[in-house]
Amino acid sequence: MSKQSIKDSIRNIADFPQKGIQFKDITTALKESAVFHEILDIFADHYKNEKIDYIAGLDARGFIFGGALAYLLNCGFIPVRKAGKLPAEVLSQEYDLEYGTDKIEIHKDAIAAGKRVLIIDDLIATGGTALAAARLVQKTGASVAGFAFMIELSDLHGTDKLKNIAPIFSLITY
Amino acid sequence: MSKQSIKDSIRNIADFPQKGIQFKDITTALKESAVFHEILDIFADHYKNEKIDYIAGLDARGFIFGGALAYLLNCGFIPVRKAGKLPAEVLSQEYDLEYGTDKIEIHKDAIAAGKRVLIIDDLIATGGTALAAARLVQKTGASVAGFAFMIELSDLHGTDKLKNIAPIFSLITY
Repeated sequence: MSKQSIKDSIRNIADFPQKGIQFKDITTALKESAVFHEILDIFADHYKNEKIDYIAGLDARGFIFGGALAYLLNCGFIPVRKAGKLPAEVLSQEYDLEYGTDKIEIHKDAIAAGKRVLIIDDLIATGGTALAAARLVQKTGASVAGFAFMIELSDLHGTDKLKNIAPIFSLITY
Repeated sequence: MSKQSIKDSIRNIADFPQKGIQFKDITTALKESAVFHEILDIFADHYKNEKIDYIAGLDARGFIFGGALAYLLNCGFIPVRKAGKLPAEVLSQEYDLEYGTDKIEIHKDAIAAGKRVLIIDDLIATGGTALAAARLVQKTGASVAGFAFMIELSDLHGTDKLKNIAPIFSLITY
């Protein structure tokens, strides 16, 4: 299976979640067993020789890939969650949205200092969430080993925010 | 690794999300690579001879197990999401909370009629969400092949709501 077949399985939904936005709907890719498998195999192959201790998945679609990749790479899984969802003591990081700000959190004791963490999400747009997640990982004393995305919207230049932190791997680019 | 070791890796957080609730924090289990692996291996082994076409993961912690299990069982993955998150046409199902109601959704075209779907979540308490997810699967014309949970809170008798629909497998019971 080629990356083009993966791309072909992604559905475009106009004006979601608001007018003017072309939403990339990955559910049509995830539900095809062969496509879902291939996506994970490409990620696992890309990182198989890297020293990675944890996969940090971003709430919520990053969990779908993150859990599977943690299994395949023999890593622990760490959820980076929207504010208020994690039950123990957290570190918080705000990030800018088009209008206003939002906040994500990680458990303060989630990661031992010095460990290497791969941050994964389904999509990078402006890169605000991924950057906030990287800051959280760094606040724990760990380091960011890389950023992995199924989709990169290159017009929004989100990777500019991340490229000085760690290598970025985007499976598909629009 | 025994089920007891998995249980030992789960952390209890008192009074979250509200006073009087003993929250089972699974993040301390997920971050241990060996524990996370064992959880998935037990699930995969349990279902390896079942005819399952799709894994439906419940938003959001069900995605962590659901994505990995879909990979291991060669199934497609289908997200069952909180209201307003899915971009295409949806089926909705309300369910009761202690105070008020909530709503989950599935894409109307997510599953072809006649397919068999395993519903997975991290925890079953009263069973309201899992029952709503089962109703959604049935509305698409597919059938529920089973329910899988990492944790069952048996005092709340949530499985009573599900047992006439499909077999239930809970890895750990409190």
